[in-house]
Amino acid sequence: MANESNTPKRTDVNTLGEFGLIDHLTQRFPLHHRSSVKGIGDDAAVIDHQGAFTVVSTDMLVEGIHFDLMYTPLKHLGYKAVVVNLSDIYAMNAIPQQIMVSVALSNRYSVEAMEELYEGIRTACSVYNVDLIGGDTTSSPKGLVISVTAIGKGHKERLTYRNTAKVGDLICITGNLGAAYMGLQILEREKQIYLSDPELQPTLEGHDYLLERQLKPEARKDMIEAFAKADLVPTAMIDISDGLGSELFHIAKQSGVGVLLEESGVPIHEDAQFQAIDFNMDPITVALSGGEDYELLFTVDPKDLDKVKYMADIYIAGEIVPAEDGVKLNSKGGKLHDITAQGWKHFDPSKN
Amino acid sequence: MANESNTPKRTDVNTLGEFGLIDHLTQRFPLHHRSSVKGIGDDAAVIDHQGAFTVVSTDMLVEGIHFDLMYTPLKHLGYKAVVVNLSDIYAMNAIPQQIMVSVALSNRYSVEAMEELYEGIRTACSVYNVDLIGGDTTSSPKGLVISVTAIGKGHKERLTYRNTAKVGDLICITGNLGAAYMGLQILEREKQIYLSDPELQPTLEGHDYLLERQLKPEARKDMIEAFAKADLVPTAMIDISDGLGSELFHIAKQSGVGVLLEESGVPIHEDAQFQAIDFNMDPITVALSGGEDYELLFTVDPKDLDKVKYMADIYIAGEIVPAEDGVKLNSKGGKLHDITAQGWKHFDPSKN
Repeated sequence: MANESNTPKRTDVNTLGEFGLIDHLTQRFPLHHRSSVKGIGDDAAVIDHQGAFTVVSTDMLVEGIHFDLMYTPLKHLGYKAVVVNLSDIYAMNAIPQQIMVSVALSNRYSVEAMEELYEGIRTACSVYNVDLIGGDTTSSPKGLVISVTAIGKGHKERLTYRNTAKVGDLICITGNLGAAYMGLQILEREKQIYLSDPELQPTLEGHDYLLERQLKPEARKDMIEAFAKADLVPTAMIDISDGLGSELFHIAKQSGVGVLLEESGVPIHEDAQFQAIDFNMDPITVALSGGEDYELLFTVDPKDLDKVKYMADIYIAGEIVPAEDGVKLNSKGGKLHDITAQGWKHFDPSKN
Repeated sequence: MANESNTPKRTDVNTLGEFGLIDHLTQRFPLHHRSSVKGIGDDAAVIDHQGAFTVVSTDMLVEGIHFDLMYTPLKHLGYKAVVVNLSDIYAMNAIPQQIMVSVALSNRYSVEAMEELYEGIRTACSVYNVDLIGGDTTSSPKGLVISVTAIGKGHKERLTYRNTAKVGDLICITGNLGAAYMGLQILEREKQIYLSDPELQPTLEGHDYLLERQLKPEARKDMIEAFAKADLVPTAMIDISDGLGSELFHIAKQSGVGVLLEESGVPIHEDAQFQAIDFNMDPITVALSGGEDYELLFTVDPKDLDKVKYMADIYIAGEIVPAEDGVKLNSKGGKLHDITAQGWKHFDPSKN
């Protein structure tokens, strides 16, 4: 009988990591259609439909890996599953209009549980003005898997890729970073306390902002609208889903440039600052490797400085430098540190 | 802590079935964008991109539900995962051009196993001339989940929906039905024999055709090309993935019509006929409820009879009748039987 265990050589997927594995598996997939403008390697793919540019992105969320139903209400999960995909479309400077949602669920889930999930999906559709146009619902032997595909509309001249940052460009960040990660740490701490003694009630009070950033993140639709209003086209853009460090490396690698990031320019909410210190963590490290912020990291030509300077909720945090200068952080103490790409840490060898 | 078990009312998902659950969950999702031409309820969704019609479909395959790696080579699985999605695009009379593939996998899978899976995906891309343009790779606590989204191009006037069959139209079927299901029965039988005594070698010889139909199905790209060549636009079309009975019910329900199916017109390969009898099954029942044929069921206006009459591999198997006449089979013995909609039987209450 056929089984992958027949394969003589066995390389653990962890040896490659997420990006390594994707690169490895997809390297021999040439694009044949002229309509396939952008394939693998950006926030979303781009298809040219006779001049209309369609932007498509897909993400899969797996129970026990991306979410823990111990502390994630299903309504929030449905909302977040949509938002993380829309964020990828916005990161192309495009407007999402449609989504498809596929769900695999075990018999553990009731119709009412699924209604909650779809209530969250419906709310996201309404808030972000997107239509649910399709999907697939199937059973799974265990757990819940949600796969969302978002489809958006873009203008050829205004789409923003990862590989187009230029030396001298300013590095900009929207909102603030690290809060979602600190929210996750609080939820994990309370879960452990609860598991050790179910009599103990979780103490989540006073952490509203951090918890909301983790459980109900928003995508920066408002920024894309502000860019259009200001007639600003970033030279490159990516959404911050895996932590600022990882995203800076994507831009640097794909654009063939280096990065000089100013610690003093990286926006971190004071709740995240305090919480990080409470957890004995360095706030800038949390911002660099935390993940799930769904803010935007983008670069602008210095000639556009006046356009971003007075835009609300945008922070200038550094400069694109030549590739040979590396990807570095200028700390508040004035020292240069190498930034390390973190990124995907979902593959947990303890799980199978 | 939040958990779906807090919900007081608990309705088992099996009470609704696949189509019932989808209908129930998606009923309050109005379409807002003019570009959302067709939402949930057909083989694929249709988006109007300034005149260019984009057709999008997505499917999720879950280990232990849709495939069994005991007898499914990963290369075939990758191929099949793509083909079943392309089949949905062809069923709209459109041409797939791009796919996105998301994979969730546990640590049980090696890089080599994933290479095999992607080798099958690559082969399908090459055979069907589609580009892999994106996706997501993530880990899962257990098992393998594959989600494929296919994107195609269609012409507004030539797209074929499920809700446009008219009384008097001829019912046509491509290829033959039931073979994939009989292939599955053979594989399941040999698996049970193997599990009861691993010393026994499976006897799969002589069943090449049935096994190939199950393990490596093809989508009817050739038919869509033949339609274009003959300037034929079916009045309605659907791919046969859940069994002919289920698909006839979709057409009947959505078009508001009835069906008179002639048993003598339903194409069944002689290998499937013999195998059905060997398994003590009725061949026409296998064709009606077997599933996974990925053939096309379509209806044509009688004025187009001459166009289909001489087309290779197309069989005229009945007529669209008024809704009040029901969905019926005229057996070879000349008796009328009600056809029952089978369809999705994946939810297995024994699993959790």
